Amino acid sequence: MKTTALIMAGGRGERFWPRSRKSLPKQFLSLTGDGRTMIQLTVERILPLVAMEDIFIATNKDYKELVKKQLPNLPEENILCEPVGRNTAPCIGLGAMHIAKKYEDALMMVLPSDHLIKYNSMFVSTLKEACRIAEENTNLVTIGITPDYPETGYGYIKFNPGVSKGQAFAVDRFVEKPTREVAKEYLETEEYLWNSGMFVWKTSSILKNIELFMKDIYEGLVRIKESIGTADQEAVLEKEFTAFRSESVDYGIMEKAEDIYTIPGTFGWDDVGSWLAVDRIRKSNEMGNVVSGNIITVNSKNCIIEGSKKLIAAVGLEDLIIVDTEDATLICEKQSAGDIKKVLENLKICNRDEYI
Amino acid sequence: MKTTALIMAGGRGERFWPRSRKSLPKQFLSLTGDGRTMIQLTVERILPLVAMEDIFIATNKDYKELVKKQLPNLPEENILCEPVGRNTAPCIGLGAMHIAKKYEDALMMVLPSDHLIKYNSMFVSTLKEACRIAEENTNLVTIGITPDYPETGYGYIKFNPGVSKGQAFAVDRFVEKPTREVAKEYLETEEYLWNSGMFVWKTSSILKNIELFMKDIYEGLVRIKESIGTADQEAVLEKEFTAFRSESVDYGIMEKAEDIYTIPGTFGWDDVGSWLAVDRIRKSNEMGNVVSGNIITVNSKNCIIEGSKKLIAAVGLEDLIIVDTEDATLICEKQSAGDIKKVLENLKICNRDEYI
Repeated sequence: MKTTALIMAGGRGERFWPRSRKSLPKQFLSLTGDGRTMIQLTVERILPLVAMEDIFIATNKDYKELVKKQLPNLPEENILCEPVGRNTAPCIGLGAMHIAKKYEDALMMVLPSDHLIKYNSMFVSTLKEACRIAEENTNLVTIGITPDYPETGYGYIKFNPGVSKGQAFAVDRFVEKPTREVAKEYLETEEYLWNSGMFVWKTSSILKNIELFMKDIYEGLVRIKESIGTADQEAVLEKEFTAFRSESVDYGIMEKAEDIYTIPGTFGWDDVGSWLAVDRIRKSNEMGNVVSGNIITVNSKNCIIEGSKKLIAAVGLEDLIIVDTEDATLICEKQSAGDIKKVLENLKICNRDEYI
Repeated sequence: MKTTALIMAGGRGERFWPRSRKSLPKQFLSLTGDGRTMIQLTVERILPLVAMEDIFIATNKDYKELVKKQLPNLPEENILCEPVGRNTAPCIGLGAMHIAKKYEDALMMVLPSDHLIKYNSMFVSTLKEACRIAEENTNLVTIGITPDYPETGYGYIKFNPGVSKGQAFAVDRFVEKPTREVAKEYLETEEYLWNSGMFVWKTSSILKNIELFMKDIYEGLVRIKESIGTADQEAVLEKEFTAFRSESVDYGIMEKAEDIYTIPGTFGWDDVGSWLAVDRIRKSNEMGNVVSGNIITVNSKNCIIEGSKKLIAAVGLEDLIIVDTEDATLICEKQSAGDIKKVLENLKICNRDEYI
C-alpha cells in the first residue's frame, strides 16, 4: 500500500514572537541554528519513507507562497490551502480526501510541521512500524512519547501494557492536560505517554471515523473531494471548509474511537513550545549562553540571545531571553516566557498589527 | 568686575554608552527627557549671572561643530578648542588666558558641562555669593556639595567651620576619593563636602596659582595668550597645548594652594555619573520604570528603558538598564553598570571603532 504523509502547517504560533509573526509562523523559522526551517526538517526527516510527490502540506492560504519557497521540490497541487483555520480534524479530513482521490486508499502519516526530532533513524523506524500496524487493519495508530518528566502542557495517552501488536500497545483512552499532581501519578504508573499529535492510519480508516463521529464535516469533505480537479475546486473548498466547525482530532475522534494503538517513541522529540526550547536544541557556550548574531556578553550567564547585525551588549545578565529583529526587540526573563502572549494581546488591543 | 564663565566640555565619557559615543559624549546628550542637552542646560542655568558673550566653552576640537549647533547664540570665538585632552588644569589655564586677554581681569566661574542642578535659583545665589567672596581678594573659591551619603566616587573638601567669609568656609585641604569607611567618618564630622569641580576666582588669581605651581604650563599659556588674535593663533595653540602634561586642577593647584574658601551647595546637584542617575533625574511610573520610546512592559519593574522607534517588549524584568540606539543595544543589570566600560574595552580590542 502506498505510504503518504500529511504535514499540518497552518499554525500561527505566537510563542516565538518577535521572530514569529502572523506572516511568518514558527514552522517557517529556522530555530536550530543550521539554517533549515522547521517544515524543511520535517519533510527531510520522512523522505526515507515517503516520496516527495506523496507529501501533502495543509496550511492556511496565506502561507502558500512560503511553503512553495521553502519546499521548491514539492508539487504545487500538494499544498492544500485552508481558507480558514478549523483545528486539526477538518485539516486531516481534507488531507485524507486528497490522498483518497489520488490513491483510493493509502497509508497516511499525519505530522505536525513544527516539532523537532533528535534521532531521525529511530523516528523513521518507529513510523515504519506504525505503518505496518496501521496496514494490518488497525483502526488508528498514534505515536506516543515516553515522558521524561510530569509535563502539564501536553495531553496524555493511557495504554494497556497487556495488549500489544508488534511495538504498539492498545490505547485505553486519551486524556487532556493534567495537573502537576496527576501528571506525576501518570509517570509513576508507566502506562501513560505524551500525545505528540503524530498519527498513522489508512485514509479509508480515518475517513470512516470522521463519518462516524462528525457526520456534518464528513459530508462537506465528500463535496470537497468531488470538486478536486474541477473548475469549482477552489470555490467549493472555500464554501465547505469555512462552514466547518473547529474541532481537534483528539477530542473529535481519538477520545471516542475504538481500536487505537500507540507506539512509544523515544527518538528525542521536542515540540519546541517556546524560546526556552532553544536551550535544549542549541549548544550553549561555557557560560550557559546560547548566542547568535553580533553579541558581546560581559558577566552574563544562561541567556538566550538571538541577534543579527545590530550589536547587542549583555552586561551582568542571567536567565534572560533576548531576541532582536528588524522592528522589535524582546527582552524576557526565562520564567516569564509564557507572558510573551501578553505583549501580543497588548499590541492587538492597540491595533499595532505591524508587530503581530 | 565683569563676571565670566568657562564651561569645560571636553569629556569623552563612556558611561552612557551606547547613547554616548566618542563622537557624541554625554555633555551633548539630553538625559533629562525634556530635549535639552546637558551643555544647553548648563548655559541656560548661568544666564542670570553671565552674558552669553562672556561664556567660554573649552572642548576638544572634534566637538566644535556640536557646540556651535547646540549653542547657536554663543560667539564662535568663545569656543576654545583643545587639540588634545590634557585634563582640567591646562583647560582652565587656556580659559583664563582668553578671558584675561578680553578683560584684563575678571571674575571667572569654572563649571563642568555635564552635571545637573535641580534647584536653579539656589544654584545661582550660591554662585553669586562665590563671586562676591572671590572679588574680595580671596585666592580661590570652590563650590562644595553637602553630602547625602558616603559616596566613594568623589573627592572631598575638608573645611574649617570656625573660619568663614559670608557663606563660605576656609578650606583645610582637598582629599582624594575615600574608602567607604573613611567616607562614613567624613559624613559624621560634618566638616567635609563633595568636590563638585565648580570653582570661582579672578583670572589674575588662578593665573598666579598656575604660575606658582606649574611654571612650565604657565609659560606655554603666556605664549598662547600672546598669539590670540594673530595669524599664528591656531598653530601656537596646537604646539603649546600638545606639549602640556596632563594635570588636574585638584591635584595641581587646589591640593597645594592657600587661602581657599568653599561654599556648601545644597541645590540638588547630580553629576549624572552613569545610567543609574536616570532613576534620580527622571520620573518613574507606578512600576518604578523610567521609560521613553516605543516600549511595552509586562510585569517589569524598576527598569530604565530608553528606546526610540523600534518596539522594545520587556517581560518579567527587574532592575535592568535597556538602551536601544540605531546600531547597538545595551542590556545591563543595574548593579553591573560599572561594567559597561568592559564592553567598550572589548570593542576597542576588536577594532570595532564604529561602535565606540
